[in-house]
Amino acid sequence: MSYNLLKGKRGLIFGALNEQSIAWKVAERAVEEGAEIVLTNTAVSIRMGTIDRLAQKCNAPVVAADATSIADLENLIDRAMEHFGGKFDFILHSIGMSLNVRKGRTYDDLDYDYLAKTLDISAISFHKVMQVARRKDALNDWGSIVALSYIAAQRTLYGYNDMADAKALLESIARSFGYIYGREKNIRINTVSQSPTPTTAGSGVMGMQDLMDFAERMSPLGNASAEDCANYVIALFSDLTRKVTMQNLYHDGGFSSMGMSRRAMRTYGKGLCMEFKDVRDNRFPFGRPDE
Amino acid sequence: MSYNLLKGKRGLIFGALNEQSIAWKVAERAVEEGAEIVLTNTAVSIRMGTIDRLAQKCNAPVVAADATSIADLENLIDRAMEHFGGKFDFILHSIGMSLNVRKGRTYDDLDYDYLAKTLDISAISFHKVMQVARRKDALNDWGSIVALSYIAAQRTLYGYNDMADAKALLESIARSFGYIYGREKNIRINTVSQSPTPTTAGSGVMGMQDLMDFAERMSPLGNASAEDCANYVIALFSDLTRKVTMQNLYHDGGFSSMGMSRRAMRTYGKGLCMEFKDVRDNRFPFGRPDE
Amino acid sequence: MSYNLLKGKRGLIFGALNEQSIAWKVAERAVEEGAEIVLTNTAVSIRMGTIDRLAQKCNAPVVAADATSIADLENLIDRAMEHFGGKFDFILHSIGMSLNVRKGRTYDDLDYDYLAKTLDISAISFHKVMQVARRKDALNDWGSIVALSYIAAQRTLYGYNDMADAKALLESIARSFGYIYGREKNIRINTVSQSPTPTTAGSGVMGMQDLMDFAERMSPLGNASAEDCANYVIALFSDLTRKVTMQNLYHDGGFSSMGMSRRAMRTYGKGLCMEFKDVRDNRFPFGRPDE
Amino acid sequence: MSYNLLKGKRGLIFGALNEQSIAWKVAERAVEEGAEIVLTNTAVSIRMGTIDRLAQKCNAPVVAADATSIADLENLIDRAMEHFGGKFDFILHSIGMSLNVRKGRTYDDLDYDYLAKTLDISAISFHKVMQVARRKDALNDWGSIVALSYIAAQRTLYGYNDMADAKALLESIARSFGYIYGREKNIRINTVSQSPTPTTAGSGVMGMQDLMDFAERMSPLGNASAEDCANYVIALFSDLTRKVTMQNLYHDGGFSSMGMSRRAMRTYGKGLCMEFKDVRDNRFPFGRPDE
Repeated sequence: MSYNLLKGKRGLIFGALNEQSIAWKVAERAVEEGAEIVLTNTAVSIRMGTIDRLAQKCNAPVVAADATSIADLENLIDRAMEHFGGKFDFILHSIGMSLNVRKGRTYDDLDYDYLAKTLDISAISFHKVMQVARRKDALNDWGSIVALSYIAAQRTLYGYNDMADAKALLESIARSFGYIYGREKNIRINTVSQSPTPTTAGSGVMGMQDLMDFAERMSPLGNASAEDCANYVIALFSDLTRKVTMQNLYHDGGFSSMGMSRRAMRTYGKGLCMEFKDVRDNRFPFGRPDE
Repeated sequence: MSYNLLKGKRGLIFGALNEQSIAWKVAERAVEEGAEIVLTNTAVSIRMGTIDRLAQKCNAPVVAADATSIADLENLIDRAMEHFGGKFDFILHSIGMSLNVRKGRTYDDLDYDYLAKTLDISAISFHKVMQVARRKDALNDWGSIVALSYIAAQRTLYGYNDMADAKALLESIARSFGYIYGREKNIRINTVSQSPTPTTAGSGVMGMQDLMDFAERMSPLGNASAEDCANYVIALFSDLTRKVTMQNLYHDGGFSSMGMSRRAMRTYGKGLCMEFKDVRDNRFPFGRPDE
Repeated sequence: MSYNLLKGKRGLIFGALNEQSIAWKVAERAVEEGAEIVLTNTAVSIRMGTIDRLAQKCNAPVVAADATSIADLENLIDRAMEHFGGKFDFILHSIGMSLNVRKGRTYDDLDYDYLAKTLDISAISFHKVMQVARRKDALNDWGSIVALSYIAAQRTLYGYNDMADAKALLESIARSFGYIYGREKNIRINTVSQSPTPTTAGSGVMGMQDLMDFAERMSPLGNASAEDCANYVIALFSDLTRKVTMQNLYHDGGFSSMGMSRRAMRTYGKGLCMEFKDVRDNRFPFGRPDE
Repeated sequence: MSYNLLKGKRGLIFGALNEQSIAWKVAERAVEEGAEIVLTNTAVSIRMGTIDRLAQKCNAPVVAADATSIADLENLIDRAMEHFGGKFDFILHSIGMSLNVRKGRTYDDLDYDYLAKTLDISAISFHKVMQVARRKDALNDWGSIVALSYIAAQRTLYGYNDMADAKALLESIARSFGYIYGREKNIRINTVSQSPTPTTAGSGVMGMQDLMDFAERMSPLGNASAEDCANYVIALFSDLTRKVTMQNLYHDGGFSSMGMSRRAMRTYGKGLCMEFKDVRDNRFPFGRPDE
C-alpha cells in the first residue's frame, strides 16, 4: 500500500531498535509513502538491535545519538541537514525507559536518581530535540512532530510505575512547545497514545501479558498494532492533518472511551465465579480474593 | 456527626424514593447539618416509595411534581418559597429513568419516543428546574445546585444504554446554565459523578452486580456509598465550596483515574486462566472466550 | 492534490448546502481521492442551496431526506445501496440547527419544544442514521463514520445556547454507538471538533465574528478552514486511521489546548487599556467595564 | 466562621511565606476548624517571609526543610510526629518555583539544569514528601493530601513556561501515588487547580496582571481568592470528602469550563476596535496587530 502521501518530505526517526519497534514500522511506511529519512538511536541500542537492516531497506543513514545530550543532538541535526541538503519536515520521538522499572523499584520506593533519568530519557529528551531543531532552524514550515505516549499519563495502571509520570510530562511538553513552534513556523506537535504494544520496551512492564489481553477485550476494535500505529503516524506527518496540534490522540481501538465491555466483563465474571468457589471450598490458590 | 455546615440554609431535594436513595441520605444529612428542606418526587414514586417516613424524620413537606412538567415545577417552587417564607439556597437533582432500559431495548434498537423520554426525565428536567427557579428568582445569591451523574457520560459501559447519553446531556446543561446563573447571582452548578450505587434506580442496569464488583476492586478506596455521597453533596452545598462551578466532580474512590488495579487484574487473570483451561479441555461453559 | 486515498470506497454525505459548507468540501475531496458518493440533505436545504452543482461536479445522486425521519432514512439508505450496488464505507454527518438560536430565545428562556427539535436534528439524527444503516447492514467492515462537533460541548461560549448541549449529546452518541458498531463490524465512529467556520449554519450564532477573531489569535496555527477540515475527514475515512474510534478529535489549530496566547492577550490588553481610559475620562461608550 | 470540621485532626503545611500565601490561609483556617498543625518551609523562605507570625497565631512549630532533600524530609516528619505525639491526618503541598522563569529564559531556550530544578522543587518534592511519610507510616488511615496546581497543566498560557510541565507532572504524581496510598491506607491524594492568585510566587509570571483580569471576566464567579481556596482545601481535609481521590479539582470560579464569556469578549472587542482604528490611522502603538 502506498499513496505517495509523504512524497518530497524528509524526516528524522528516533527509537527503532528491531522489527517489533513502532519506530521501525513508521520508518518503513514513511519510505513507502515517498519520504526520505534519517534514523537515530543510542550507540548501545544500535549495537543491541538490528537497525542496520532497516537502514539498508530504507536507504537511510543511521546517526548515533543520546537524545538526552545536547551535543549529540546538535551533531545529529547537523548530520541530518547535511544528508537532506537542507531542512526537513517531520520527527518521530519513540523513546522511553525507566531504571526504576528495570531494577524492580516500586512506585512507593523510587530511586530519585533513576526517576530523574526516566524523565530525562522519556520526556525531557523530547524538549531537547525540539529546542535544538528550532535553534538550527532545521524544520520546514508546516512540519509535523509526533511523540509516542500511553494512557498511563491519564489513568494509573499498576506496574507502569514512573513511566506514567514521564508520559504526562511528555504530553505537557508537546502542548507547551506546540504553542511556540506553531505560532512561529506553523509546525504542529502531537502525541499518539497507543495501545499496549508487544515491543521490546513494553515487555519490561509487570503483568504486560494480562494487561494486553484486558485491553484487547475492552477495545471494540481490539488493540492497535505497531503497523496500525505506523499508518496513523503517517497520516499525522502528511498534509491532511495540518491544523491538528497540541493534541494527545488516542490510537487504541476505543479503549480510552470504554468503561466496561461485555467481552472483558465475561472473563472478569469467570474470575469472580472461581473466587467464590474457592472461598466456599476454603482454597485460596492466588491469595485471598480481596487482599 | 454534625458541623452545622448548612445552618440557616434551605433547600429542595428531588428524587428520594426509599432508604437506598442517595437523595434520601442527602436529605437526612442536610437536616442534620442544620438545613430546612422541601422534598419532592413524582406522585407515582411517592406512592411506591416511603418518602413520607423521610418527611416526618426531616420535618419537611412533600410536594408532588413531575420534573418534566413546567406547571408542576412552577407550583413546586411556589410551594417551597411559601414554606420557607422566601428564597432558598440549594437544590439536589437526583432523577434518572430510561424506558429503553426497562423495556429491554438495546442501544442499537432504541425506541426514539423512549429516548426522548429518557432525555426529558434524566437531563432536560434539570434545565426546567433551573429555568423555573430563575424566573421566580427563587434562589439566594451564592446558592448551590447539584445533579447526580455517572461516568458513563465519558466512557461506554455495556448495558448502560441511552442513560449514558442522558448523563452527558445533563453534565452539559450544568455547564451551560452554570455560566448564566453564576454571572448573574453567583449561584454555582455542578454534577457529582458517583460510583455505581445499589439503589432502586441502579438495579435496573444489566450486569450491575458484576460491574459494581469490578468498580470496587478498581477503586483504591472502594466504591463510594450513598452515605459517602451525601457527605460530599453537603460539602458542595456549604460555603466552603463557593467558587467551584460548572464542574463534573468524580466521587468514586478513584475509579475514574484508574486504568488497571492489581486487585481487579488478579480476578481478571483467574477468568483468563479458566478460559484457557476450558479451551484446552474443549469445554466452553460460558460460550467461546472471544465471542 | 490527490493520493487516491479513498479509491474503491463509497460514502454518504449529509449536510452540503452551498460552497461554504464543510460537507461540500468533504464531498469534493472524497471524489478527488477516488471515492464514489451519494449526497443528501432536507428538501428545503436542497431548494435553498446549490447542492445540484456539487452533485454534477461529483457525479453523485442527491437524495432528499429529513435525518430525523426513520422513513426518510430507510429510503435514503436503500437508494444509496442501490446506487452503489451494495454496501458502502463511510458517512459524514454535518447537521445542526437550533430554533432557540434562530428565534432569539436565550439559554435561560428556552422553548422546550425547540430544544427537543435542536436535539433531534443536531444529535439524535446521528443515532437514527446509524441505527438504520446497521439494520440494513449497509456498511462494510472497517467502515468509518464522522460527525462534526464543536468545543462548546466541553466549554461554554456565550451565545452558543442549546447547540452546546446538542454537541455534547452528539459526542456521547458517537461513543455509545462506536462500542457497538466497533465490536460487531470494526466500524469506527468519531467526531471532529472543528474551529468556528464561516458557514451559513455558523453565521447564526451571536457575536460569531469577534469569536472567530479571538479563536484565530488564540490558536497557534490559526483557525482551521472548511478545506482543512475536509482533508482531516478524508484521513479519517481512509485506511490509515482504522484503529481510531470513539474519539472527539480537535481540529482547531491548537485552540483547545490554549489557555492564553500572546497575540490574543495583546488585543485584550488594548481593550483593558481603553476601558481604564474611559473610566478616567468618565466616558462609557460600551457600558461600564464590569457590567 | 468555624464548624469544627477538623477537630482532632493534625496536619503538616508546606509553603506559607507571607500573608498572601495560600498555605498561610489554609493554616489559619485549619486551626480555626480545630486542627493542630506543623508549618514548614525552606530556611531561606523562613528568613525572607513572616511565617513566625503565623506560627505564633496558630500555636504551631516551624520546621525548616528543603522539600527536595530526603534527609530534611525525614527530619521534618520525625519532628512533626514528635510534636503530634503520633501519626497525623493531612498534608498541604504548596510549593513551586522555576529558575527559568526567574532568569528570563523562555520556553524555547530552557536551561536544562534549571528545568531539572523546576521539576524537582515543584513536582518531585511532592513524591518525596509522600514516600518519606509512607515509609515512616506517618499518616492515619483515611488521611488527606492536597497539592496546589494550575490549569497550565492542561492548557498553554504564554509566559507560564516550564511551570506548566511541572504542574502536569505534579498532577500525575498525585494520581500515581493516590492509587498506592489509597489501596493501602485509604489515604486520598488530590490536586486543587486554583485561579491565578496574587501571591508572591504568582507575581513572577509574565503578564500576570492582564491574565488575572482576563480570568476574572471569563469566570462566572470571578477568580477564586486565597481565602476561598483555603475553605475548599479544608473541605478536602475533612471527613466529608473521604471517597474523592486521584482527582484534579478546578477551584476557579468556572474558568476551566468557559470557552468565552460576554464580559471578556466585550473587552476583547474593544481591543479589536482600537486595532482597526490604528490600522486605519496608520498608527501602531503596540506593534502591528497580528505580529
